[in-house]
Amino acid sequence: MKQKLRVIGIDDSPFKFEDEDVLVVGSIVRAPNYLEGVLSTRVKVDGLDATDKLIQMISNSRFAEQPCMIMTDGAALGGFNLIDLKKLWKQTGIPSLSISRDEPDFVKIKKAMKKHLPDWKDKFNKISSGDIYKIETEHKPIFVQIEGIDISEAERIIKLFTIRGRIPEPIRMSHIVASGIVRGESKGKP
Amino acid sequence: MKQKLRVIGIDDSPFKFEDEDVLVVGSIVRAPNYLEGVLSTRVKVDGLDATDKLIQMISNSRFAEQPCMIMTDGAALGGFNLIDLKKLWKQTGIPSLSISRDEPDFVKIKKAMKKHLPDWKDKFNKISSGDIYKIETEHKPIFVQIEGIDISEAERIIKLFTIRGRIPEPIRMSHIVASGIVRGESKGKP
Repeated sequence: MKQKLRVIGIDDSPFKFEDEDVLVVGSIVRAPNYLEGVLSTRVKVDGLDATDKLIQMISNSRFAEQPCMIMTDGAALGGFNLIDLKKLWKQTGIPSLSISRDEPDFVKIKKAMKKHLPDWKDKFNKISSGDIYKIETEHKPIFVQIEGIDISEAERIIKLFTIRGRIPEPIRMSHIVASGIVRGESKGKP
Repeated sequence: MKQKLRVIGIDDSPFKFEDEDVLVVGSIVRAPNYLEGVLSTRVKVDGLDATDKLIQMISNSRFAEQPCMIMTDGAALGGFNLIDLKKLWKQTGIPSLSISRDEPDFVKIKKAMKKHLPDWKDKFNKISSGDIYKIETEHKPIFVQIEGIDISEAERIIKLFTIRGRIPEPIRMSHIVASGIVRGESKGKP
């Protein structure tokens, strides 16, 4: 029997740095792309509440028990509102993973953080301390950070949920939803 | 070569009758369920702007040329804000169809309209004048009204976009999105 794997894919909406907060969407998807549910919350632009808001959003929902993985688009939401993957995994009990299209450029990130954030040092240390794995795809590679799962299993699940390009469906769908709701029309790629 | 059929499926979010307006979501889906885009707008509860808002939402988007059909969940949005299918079809150039799970009970509808709407007569005449087709599914039947397409072609497209149950994916996905965004968690079936 084929296993019914479910993933929650998370992305935020477009925003301007003067906005106070930003819409965050979680799509619950059964492999490879059957939409079963949508969750939503808001997090502060450049704030500190992303991890707690995600934990609340998922744990308070009826989807808390089902997913085999949480996937987030990048390591932060709403600018530099960092996602603590280890805390997300420990508190929800669901292995957690962030995906980036580009290898993090820590020189650039440090510079941007210094400019925007008084408390940049702690944040920078957190973002730059975890292992980053490179996964090859049919297109360009992706870069992932993981908690609660090993990289070979993470890679297997990513592939199960990827249809076109290199972004898994749960994240791609959340990107389209968040952008379509906030702008009136979804644009571009996550 | 397999034709790449696209449909826009439309549903509104949950609302209370004291709300002024309601979120409306349009999902652009390639058969059977690949999400390509999301559009959104707002219409007045029990208002008169549903048709014009849908025409604007679709015509101003980059998806205006692609879909072979617009599918709406029921004949109205935001309570009794009726969708004029003929106008929607004529102005967008896209054949339009509304789907209901239940055979319209015109006695009940008339009663509800009389209670809520001063201008109920015109609205009731419009809603009760079009042909209603019953389509059998593996589950219960659905009831549709159509403009710009014949019923056999409409039925073929509905089946192409239906995966589970009797509601085609573009409407089912818009229902999940609208409800997940407004409530924080999607619930129930469209």
